[in-house]
Amino acid sequence: MVGTGRTAALNAAALDAALRYAHRHRARFLDDVVALASIPSVSSRPEHRADMGRAARWLARRLRRAGLNGVHVVATGGHPVVTAGWGTRAELPTLLIYGHYDVQPAEPLSSWTSPPFRPARRGGLIVGRGVSDDKGQLLAHVAAVESWLLTSGRLPVNVRLVFDGEEEIGSPHLPAFLDRYWSRLQPDAVVISDTRMRDADTPALTISLRGSLNLELVVTGPAAPVHSGTYGGALAEPARELCRIIAGLHGSDGTPIPHLRLGTSTAPAAARRAATRSGPSDVELLTLARAPRPGRGTVEPGWSAHERTTVRPACVVTGLYAGDAGPGHHAVPGSATARLNLRLAPGQDPSVVEAALWRYLRATARAGVRVALRRLSSAPPVELPASGPVVEAARAACCRGFGREPVLLRSGGTIPVVSELAGRRELPTVLMGFALPDDRMHAPDERLSISSFTRGTRTAVAFLHELGDRVPGCADPWRCPGSALGRRGR
Amino acid sequence: MVGTGRTAALNAAALDAALRYAHRHRARFLDDVVALASIPSVSSRPEHRADMGRAARWLARRLRRAGLNGVHVVATGGHPVVTAGWGTRAELPTLLIYGHYDVQPAEPLSSWTSPPFRPARRGGLIVGRGVSDDKGQLLAHVAAVESWLLTSGRLPVNVRLVFDGEEEIGSPHLPAFLDRYWSRLQPDAVVISDTRMRDADTPALTISLRGSLNLELVVTGPAAPVHSGTYGGALAEPARELCRIIAGLHGSDGTPIPHLRLGTSTAPAAARRAATRSGPSDVELLTLARAPRPGRGTVEPGWSAHERTTVRPACVVTGLYAGDAGPGHHAVPGSATARLNLRLAPGQDPSVVEAALWRYLRATARAGVRVALRRLSSAPPVELPASGPVVEAARAACCRGFGREPVLLRSGGTIPVVSELAGRRELPTVLMGFALPDDRMHAPDERLSISSFTRGTRTAVAFLHELGDRVPGCADPWRCPGSALGRRGR
Repeated sequence: MVGTGRTAALNAAALDAALRYAHRHRARFLDDVVALASIPSVSSRPEHRADMGRAARWLARRLRRAGLNGVHVVATGGHPVVTAGWGTRAELPTLLIYGHYDVQPAEPLSSWTSPPFRPARRGGLIVGRGVSDDKGQLLAHVAAVESWLLTSGRLPVNVRLVFDGEEEIGSPHLPAFLDRYWSRLQPDAVVISDTRMRDADTPALTISLRGSLNLELVVTGPAAPVHSGTYGGALAEPARELCRIIAGLHGSDGTPIPHLRLGTSTAPAAARRAATRSGPSDVELLTLARAPRPGRGTVEPGWSAHERTTVRPACVVTGLYAGDAGPGHHAVPGSATARLNLRLAPGQDPSVVEAALWRYLRATARAGVRVALRRLSSAPPVELPASGPVVEAARAACCRGFGREPVLLRSGGTIPVVSELAGRRELPTVLMGFALPDDRMHAPDERLSISSFTRGTRTAVAFLHELGDRVPGCADPWRCPGSALGRRGR
Repeated sequence: MVGTGRTAALNAAALDAALRYAHRHRARFLDDVVALASIPSVSSRPEHRADMGRAARWLARRLRRAGLNGVHVVATGGHPVVTAGWGTRAELPTLLIYGHYDVQPAEPLSSWTSPPFRPARRGGLIVGRGVSDDKGQLLAHVAAVESWLLTSGRLPVNVRLVFDGEEEIGSPHLPAFLDRYWSRLQPDAVVISDTRMRDADTPALTISLRGSLNLELVVTGPAAPVHSGTYGGALAEPARELCRIIAGLHGSDGTPIPHLRLGTSTAPAAARRAATRSGPSDVELLTLARAPRPGRGTVEPGWSAHERTTVRPACVVTGLYAGDAGPGHHAVPGSATARLNLRLAPGQDPSVVEAALWRYLRATARAGVRVALRRLSSAPPVELPASGPVVEAARAACCRGFGREPVLLRSGGTIPVVSELAGRRELPTVLMGFALPDDRMHAPDERLSISSFTRGTRTAVAFLHELGDRVPGCADPWRCPGSALGRRGR
């Protein structure tokens, strides 16, 4: 399979045809992004359940039009998974393409300059919820597959597409889905495009992700709200106690309490300098966040902003809720809730950190209130190898798509399935994202760069070719586990 | 006027007739409470503006049916004031009866056992928002006036009724209303029923109110929410900073910071012992609040629960708001808001405390976030005289209505107009409330004791008689200011 002269020439001609097709159809591929992003598939909101189904069915139709087989909308205990595939030839490697069609909520709506679910073209951008995270990125792969199938009638590899409807809520049903359908998937490698490039011209492969631990912290006091005049001052107040507990999670210098740092380690100085060079500068990162420079005590001292968001843990208060009757209500709330999103640094274990946090809460809580902690979702941090044939294929594909070698980046984000595939199942996994640092994922005015999308599609077309060229197939994962690929290839 | 034998006998006969009328019509008077409490007149909510108008018009019709003159729904810059009057005889004192027809929001709705605006009779109670605070209490006075007018065709005093539509939002337009219509009001005394009895059998006159300072504290950081993975850890987070600022408002032993205590003083030990005897015990107060016993550090040490809620300040967090996109949203919120309801102890000045709090905030705020403080409403604390002819009239009325002398109580609540009438205008003001300690004002399942209402109505009937008997009239407040009444009478 690998590299005879005739096959290589044939493959090169087919790649050219696929790339030309992708170029000719680029406007239609963009229309697909607009169409899918018009469906408000917010997985965390029960009121969008029907939209989740609509988005899944839209995607299934799109996959069939791309020439894929075995297209299914698979019911799970939550939102459906959309799957498709092509090819069962044992001599070809099997690539799992993972993406997610669910999106973050769009609130606060007032911060958007156009309606989040009516994607608007604005210069070289499409603005709308999910255009970048992850609808645009997954559709680049669909476009790539179509570009091969509708030109050569074949792909250089077997593919299995798995599009998740629950990534934004921690992919709770995906492990069970993978277990159940593993015999039909049997991948040798995984590609996921749900990460960022270094900048508009520099592609990037992401080699580490932080973990995520989403918790709900509830402090309760009186059985129901009580008159703030009649009782204010005489009882333990849930909202005040909640604030005190949260304030105590960081030292006065900004360092998280040891409980939140369990499992972290400090990289050698040389590695730190290298990581700092490859990542954004403090000013760059804060400019992207449109945030003021953090004052003393507000962030962990002794680290760069890039390190703080990639190799250090963070404990973010994503929500505070107390006193739902609003401004005119003069009552001591009966309870107060905080939502915490802990981002875990490489080396940390969600269960260990959660248990440590619970110990802190028990030690800190005062009589007069009750404290409860509930886990909403979790995913461990992941470190991926920076070499091997699948990484090499991605490097070569980026060179073709963007005319430039990708840099290796650490990311502060989390993709729950990665630990499942790259960690537990030891599959060589490449995170080859086409989003730009200022794409405002999870934020108002999320956008997709049209140029990135088009070059990302080219890259995805080329990746199929490069992977077929480099990685041998293996029909039987028991004899030939994917984990061994790092040591094989050409 | 005062106390000739013939007048006294005539008056006594008229009082008996009025009391009999009140007894005969008690069921209808209760129906009035249910009818008015069925209108969701929540002054703090723009969506209830029409309901405010409906409640005002309902009240105006009711006042006309009671035989009152000069009934008007008076527009203000906010919600209307409903006024009425009877009598202009210079030899009779003029009594201002103040009440409010607006109510607190009903949320959290899930904590109600019946719909808040469908008042339900349950045993000896009516359960519904506003039945006690203050619709039931103001209607006791309307019933009393009707009981006189529809039996004797006259009242023992001139009356002016002023029913506020904005008490629960700090009565912002009432001072201007009083200024404008003062020449038509010219009261010699004020009665307000918007407070509590000592217990179901012991009436009470309230002799002090805490002040109230409602503030909104907003902490802002990034221009909009940002991805908690990508940026979490690298920027100053508004929600965490808000928690830190709030946590800092009390020392670790539970004492409010000195800024919040400015102007307070410690009463002599004897006075403290007396106050403690008249008020509820710690256990009683916490049982009423349905709150657990407060732990060390959650309340100010060295005071009883009753003192903490009457002669000590309190800083209550009535609301926390950050991350409006809810549980599935993994973003660093761009801003976080707290609503603070400061209850001010006797001696404190709202402006002084607000300025001190602002100094604390400026000293505490860290670079990377901006802090803003906005005053929503304020009212100074009030201390009222415990003697004088108006207080004596109230005492005598309570004896008639409840068969028992009232106790003198301090209250932790606030009635904004009291400082305006008793403070600035120096009118003898009596706070004679018919609510019970467990009436759950401002809380879910607010209730009115039917027996209290009926006995309160009797008391209000008798109060008109006792006041007419004790206080001379005065047509010209310039010659005969209300403030002088404390030194006159029989």
